[in-house]
Amino acid sequence: MLAPTLAVIGGGQLARMMAEPAAALGIPLRLLAEAEGVSAAQVIPDHLVGDYRSLDLLQKVVDGCSVVTFDHEHVPTEHLHALEDAGVAVRPGPEALVHAQDKAVMRSRLAALGVPCPRNAVVSSVADVEAFGFPCVLKITRGGYDGKGVWFVRSADDCAEAFASGVPVLAEELVDFRRELSALVARSPSGQAAAYPVVASTQKDGICHEVIAPAPELPSALAGEAQEIALRIAGALDVTGILAVEMFETNDGRVLVNELAMRPHNTGHWTQDGAVTSQFENHLRAVLDLPLGSPAPRARWTVMVNILGGPDASVGRLYDGYPHALARDPFLRVHLYGKELRPGRKVGHVNAYGDDLDDCLERARHAAAWFRGDLGDESE
Amino acid sequence: MLAPTLAVIGGGQLARMMAEPAAALGIPLRLLAEAEGVSAAQVIPDHLVGDYRSLDLLQKVVDGCSVVTFDHEHVPTEHLHALEDAGVAVRPGPEALVHAQDKAVMRSRLAALGVPCPRNAVVSSVADVEAFGFPCVLKITRGGYDGKGVWFVRSADDCAEAFASGVPVLAEELVDFRRELSALVARSPSGQAAAYPVVASTQKDGICHEVIAPAPELPSALAGEAQEIALRIAGALDVTGILAVEMFETNDGRVLVNELAMRPHNTGHWTQDGAVTSQFENHLRAVLDLPLGSPAPRARWTVMVNILGGPDASVGRLYDGYPHALARDPFLRVHLYGKELRPGRKVGHVNAYGDDLDDCLERARHAAAWFRGDLGDESE
Repeated sequence: MLAPTLAVIGGGQLARMMAEPAAALGIPLRLLAEAEGVSAAQVIPDHLVGDYRSLDLLQKVVDGCSVVTFDHEHVPTEHLHALEDAGVAVRPGPEALVHAQDKAVMRSRLAALGVPCPRNAVVSSVADVEAFGFPCVLKITRGGYDGKGVWFVRSADDCAEAFASGVPVLAEELVDFRRELSALVARSPSGQAAAYPVVASTQKDGICHEVIAPAPELPSALAGEAQEIALRIAGALDVTGILAVEMFETNDGRVLVNELAMRPHNTGHWTQDGAVTSQFENHLRAVLDLPLGSPAPRARWTVMVNILGGPDASVGRLYDGYPHALARDPFLRVHLYGKELRPGRKVGHVNAYGDDLDDCLERARHAAAWFRGDLGDESE
Repeated sequence: MLAPTLAVIGGGQLARMMAEPAAALGIPLRLLAEAEGVSAAQVIPDHLVGDYRSLDLLQKVVDGCSVVTFDHEHVPTEHLHALEDAGVAVRPGPEALVHAQDKAVMRSRLAALGVPCPRNAVVSSVADVEAFGFPCVLKITRGGYDGKGVWFVRSADDCAEAFASGVPVLAEELVDFRRELSALVARSPSGQAAAYPVVASTQKDGICHEVIAPAPELPSALAGEAQEIALRIAGALDVTGILAVEMFETNDGRVLVNELAMRPHNTGHWTQDGAVTSQFENHLRAVLDLPLGSPAPRARWTVMVNILGGPDASVGRLYDGYPHALARDPFLRVHLYGKELRPGRKVGHVNAYGDDLDDCLERARHAAAWFRGDLGDESE
């Protein structure tokens, strides 16, 4: 028997990177892309083009598919229910996905589960924020991404922008953190779950910039706790596919959950070259309820660095960066998304793995800086 | 700069497996497929359908591409010259490719290079074969593959079929060999070359069945000689892309060249999971004259076993074999080609890697037998 076709909503790089293991496993994909020529549409022949907010179109995409999954978390909940009512398995399902869509729902659910989180409260006025206490972080509860929709506020004067959005706002304490961690798990409908090693991630302007797998010098009890939290959330919320739990490691040795994502995640890109089974393959296996592949690392260290367009995208390089980058490091693994360079846009990433962390960091940082056209601080 | 589009002629599994690293490297492919829905056409959106013997069609496929490469070696030489004359870089080029198309040309060239080969002669009659000496092997010089076009002959009576084909025939001595080896190299137009570890391959009914990387207990001098031969042939013939040199390891400790292939090869499928850079990625890098990736192994042992349709294809499993195969071995790597099971048809392969060769053999053989629907001798 050949494999059933899996529907994927969203044509970004995450769907593109699902296409590689899908080809290897012989699993046909049917894509809904935002526009012709977007990242995933370049590599998935069976695609429709249009708006994921159109239920009609979603129904066309899933026609003949028994399972649908996602490149992003933005499909309206009512559409997901409609697809479920029509007999399509929506993975992750709307009841799970709402926790990645709405930060207030997520915070309230995690509190009920006893999962450690920063102190938080839904706020609807500057007076509420004052009552919560400055300084703090304001986040719109829906629609934020990559640092957008997040404000660090120190006084009443800073709050205007957050409330101007018209979206409910969540206030969170400023956490005194040592660094950010990410715990990634894959979970299938039948409840099998695989936890990847906990990684350390560095943000730059609110965007994931660099990931070290595993997180260096993380006490094993804390690593175990982070994995246990991620597995507990995945189980309690009935997540199917990849769940990424971004956490703060506090300076007093605790982990606090920051964000949830229910799809392959930037902090898991290292798995493409650094783990037995990549997050993209395990996402496919999980949503199809196939046995999961081992999440074990294949190298002592793997470092991922994102390639972003710099402020002056004209100095960046993509394909034309290959002659130097590949000759300098025959062990370098490059992943480009088929996107033109634009300021601040994620256009690819590199992975470097090996026994020596400093060497991996130097190689990955040099290559990413070379592609960005910015051989500044990191490479020296 | 985004990457130039690379034209690929032939829609089989080799082109399909090029699509995975092409997506990762951000290299767009344009495919000429034999028919809609064939293996590679399932995963390469930009494809035309038709006959690779049509020069008109070839010209359409390469339109706007500066480089063309191949999934097979059957494109007529005069068409390759016509494409070159039109300014397209044909990689590998017709002067190189003829050595993989015509065994008589190959033998005569290798002799001129001083490369050790089985004793051989072009024969045009049974009398010629008698003069060459029985027993021997007869091969049609063009068009044979996977054991087709090869006959073991012990007397004049056995020769009829070979001469009935109308194609010139080559006679070769029966080599007293210990096993078959394969030396794979990638070579770029600027002359950079990377040699993969020499592997041992086992044939079954003339079709590659199992590969062990590296070849167990191969004396390092002989492994070095095999790699040196492959690099020498690649350089002398100006091969671009992957060259696979299949060899006999004789019982008296020599290597003799058996066959050449100028494309990713079944004996190199282990590199997808067992080497830093797969043969498919290095083929792309080579034909685009990009620096080659490291051919170093990532595990002590990697075993590849092909999945073929058995005599009764109805007992085989593909996607429906996953629940058992993947649960039994979370470290197993499966590659299916999007082809229905048919008797004797290659529909996929599995790779198992690790520190213990017996364990890798058991896991890969079990999985392949399970997919074939034949849990007979190998698995017990």
